[in-house]
Amino acid sequence: MRPAIDLNSDLGESFGPWRVGDDEAMFALITSANVACGFHAGDAVTMAASAQLAVRNGVSLGAHPGYRDRIGFGRRALDTSPAELAAELLVQLGSLEALARVAGTRVRYVKAHGALYHRLAADEAAAHAYAEAVAAYDPGLPILGPPASAIERAADAAGLRFAREAFVDRAYAPDGSLLARGEPGAVIGDPAAAAERALELAETGGIAAVDGARVDLLPDSLCLHGDTRGSVEIARTVRRALEGTVELRPFA
Amino acid sequence: MRPAIDLNSDLGESFGPWRVGDDEAMFALITSANVACGFHAGDAVTMAASAQLAVRNGVSLGAHPGYRDRIGFGRRALDTSPAELAAELLVQLGSLEALARVAGTRVRYVKAHGALYHRLAADEAAAHAYAEAVAAYDPGLPILGPPASAIERAADAAGLRFAREAFVDRAYAPDGSLLARGEPGAVIGDPAAAAERALELAETGGIAAVDGARVDLLPDSLCLHGDTRGSVEIARTVRRALEGTVELRPFA
Amino acid sequence: MRPAIDLNSDLGESFGPWRVGDDEAMFALITSANVACGFHAGDAVTMAASAQLAVRNGVSLGAHPGYRDRIGFGRRALDTSPAELAAELLVQLGSLEALARVAGTRVRYVKAHGALYHRLAADEAAAHAYAEAVAAYDPGLPILGPPASAIERAADAAGLRFAREAFVDRAYAPDGSLLARGEPGAVIGDPAAAAERALELAETGGIAAVDGARVDLLPDSLCLHGDTRGSVEIARTVRRALEGTVELRPFA
Amino acid sequence: MRPAIDLNSDLGESFGPWRVGDDEAMFALITSANVACGFHAGDAVTMAASAQLAVRNGVSLGAHPGYRDRIGFGRRALDTSPAELAAELLVQLGSLEALARVAGTRVRYVKAHGALYHRLAADEAAAHAYAEAVAAYDPGLPILGPPASAIERAADAAGLRFAREAFVDRAYAPDGSLLARGEPGAVIGDPAAAAERALELAETGGIAAVDGARVDLLPDSLCLHGDTRGSVEIARTVRRALEGTVELRPFA
Repeated sequence: MRPAIDLNSDLGESFGPWRVGDDEAMFALITSANVACGFHAGDAVTMAASAQLAVRNGVSLGAHPGYRDRIGFGRRALDTSPAELAAELLVQLGSLEALARVAGTRVRYVKAHGALYHRLAADEAAAHAYAEAVAAYDPGLPILGPPASAIERAADAAGLRFAREAFVDRAYAPDGSLLARGEPGAVIGDPAAAAERALELAETGGIAAVDGARVDLLPDSLCLHGDTRGSVEIARTVRRALEGTVELRPFA
Repeated sequence: MRPAIDLNSDLGESFGPWRVGDDEAMFALITSANVACGFHAGDAVTMAASAQLAVRNGVSLGAHPGYRDRIGFGRRALDTSPAELAAELLVQLGSLEALARVAGTRVRYVKAHGALYHRLAADEAAAHAYAEAVAAYDPGLPILGPPASAIERAADAAGLRFAREAFVDRAYAPDGSLLARGEPGAVIGDPAAAAERALELAETGGIAAVDGARVDLLPDSLCLHGDTRGSVEIARTVRRALEGTVELRPFA
Repeated sequence: MRPAIDLNSDLGESFGPWRVGDDEAMFALITSANVACGFHAGDAVTMAASAQLAVRNGVSLGAHPGYRDRIGFGRRALDTSPAELAAELLVQLGSLEALARVAGTRVRYVKAHGALYHRLAADEAAAHAYAEAVAAYDPGLPILGPPASAIERAADAAGLRFAREAFVDRAYAPDGSLLARGEPGAVIGDPAAAAERALELAETGGIAAVDGARVDLLPDSLCLHGDTRGSVEIARTVRRALEGTVELRPFA
Repeated sequence: MRPAIDLNSDLGESFGPWRVGDDEAMFALITSANVACGFHAGDAVTMAASAQLAVRNGVSLGAHPGYRDRIGFGRRALDTSPAELAAELLVQLGSLEALARVAGTRVRYVKAHGALYHRLAADEAAAHAYAEAVAAYDPGLPILGPPASAIERAADAAGLRFAREAFVDRAYAPDGSLLARGEPGAVIGDPAAAAERALELAETGGIAAVDGARVDLLPDSLCLHGDTRGSVEIARTVRRALEGTVELRPFA
């Protein structure tokens, strides 16, 4: 019996006149789209277009909330309180939900963006505020995030389903954390290498860390970057490698 | 048999550290709160607090979308396209809906703010885009606005309930439009005078225009300003005048 | 004796992570750069980089203020008061001046952007507020704008030098106004045709309108778009056509 | 021979329709105004009004740059890079300079706001980037900040004059740092007590720390808060206590 895996990507990251990525191409290659909700990227018109692309491509629509910091693209640490974090999450979630509803779908999961993603991996108080806000909004909404993290524990505590993601184009440290981007070999730019890693992760649930040791990540979803030069080529190569071997299916 | 009337007010207009109005006091005096949704005023934390105040005071919660223009408080005309207008309406509506759900209530109606309110009163294309977006989101959601306006016609065309509002502290021209603020006598600052007008509007559905001619407005709701010096005193006086004579009840 | 002409382009229009245009290439082809000042586009880091590019390429640096409307890229009409317009102009001008000073240059002229550009062409009160603000800041600072416009008259009245610009890639109506973009033939996309028009404008000061009648524009500067596909190719072709025939020199 | 002291306050902190503090009253009581520059608070019209108030009251105008975070009022830590920090400082400085020039004055010093103020007190790399940006803009512009801080050292290294400030309404720890606001006795709300401390600081340069030990701060300026209930009363009482004993004079 073949396992199933999800392919997710951060999309809808344009803002006003500024375009980024090739969303049309990426939506056709993935099974779940993490759509920016207007705080770190995205705007109302872009969000509406993303919801329509999700429907048209049969892709599961996820909210991708971030810090309210467009210039920094949500990648800079910002010391928000848990109450701010929860309220801003709900604003972003609800915004996308309204556009999803009009497009004929709904938000099926939540995945945090950038510096907020990293904070929720480690900051227990923030992770709990976040998971509790999601649970209060909809206890059936899963959270997508990194394995063995504060947010996984917080999702468990809040009674939410937690889905684990792994990165096909990033090297892992032996402890299962991502190798910092600055490190040699941290980013895998070769489509064939990324595809090979995707296949191994999908079939075995694990991958060789940078030192050769095996890391078990047990991913429900593989993350494909959507905004870099070569994103579409990597995504296409990964998809082709998986098709026929692993079932590609939205995790939510 | 006594008629019923609604009292609405624009609230939740603080932003970050900047406070405006006495929302605690106003929520206790009205039956419907038009809550700013973060575009012209309001922020996530303020919206959450407003939803909680609505629940605590048994007040009907309305979304109060405006132009994305904080510095101008949504009072400056901005030439958005109908598509932008519809998408931005949905973002604002959905934001408040999410916070409402978590607070234990829901958004029960929509009333536009400032320059958008005035545009929707006259601009048929904008009014249709707006009403159709509301109908696509929830065909059971009423629109609150000025009588005999483009937005009333658009709500009718979209199959939405339209609720009419009248102003207790503003003088009317013989054609039923508001006298411009600059005109002598345009703004009624005396609480007793406002209360008298409120009672007449609630009981008879009409009011004397500035030239003495009777204007029939048939309001479902009376608007009380919440942000000016003296707002609470006017609201309190109006409420006392109506209580015992007219039933005060949310229109939605 | 050969006449001299200036080539200007709107640059520095990136924002945070969002890149637009090929500024490196364009700065090498023009003589004057209209740099966005953070209201409709641009940010502090982009403005600093633009000032450095101006120094490195011997290009005259101009402030390119617009409405405070990033999502609309300053292209939507916004009903600001003359006082807001003047204060916001000064904020934008001063921002760029500070970065220019640190880069070793200074702001040499002002050209409005988008909907503000169009408003200043026709709205006498706005044009006067704008010109008076520039004159109060620095009476030696020229304004670049469309010929025979409200802003030309206002600059004259304020004692400012006014420099006229013409567009090499846009067709003109017989009255000297630009043909609306929607009209057939309004936009000239062919580099060779644009270069031919540039040469005629530079050498004769006039151009054939859409009906064949001659329009005298007497431009001090020719505007080259910097943000469209093909911008660099058009700019390069125009520059080559002018070099050797007309002296290319900053107008300010 | 009597010593001289400066009284500074953070002013111009309104934003769009939202008013804060009684700037008219405060400008009449102080000698130096730290004016918000539109990033954490303030807007173009408010900045223009503040520059005019400075001229009218013979008050020295200072730029008060902060993080680009209005909702957080610049009080939340934000992980900007030194290059962003320097460019954003210059944008803010230049904005106010332009409005100052038109009002007939100029920016005479720089004092950071909120979380940026605290970061510059301790983060050497950030403090150096900041001081070097000020020096590149104008080597004659002093920096106002906390004694014995990273920013004092950075100002020295950049060849800038550094002016020290002390707080009349805050208790000090024995090491010269401010007692955290949450600690008992950290904030002095009594105008007479604040005035007594102001007099001691102005005359002796030192003050008793919370444990009774003497702390030498040698302030050039005393900071008066401008935004709290009672600000004006404290400022008035402090000013009266100093007048006749100490010369009140802008430090820059």
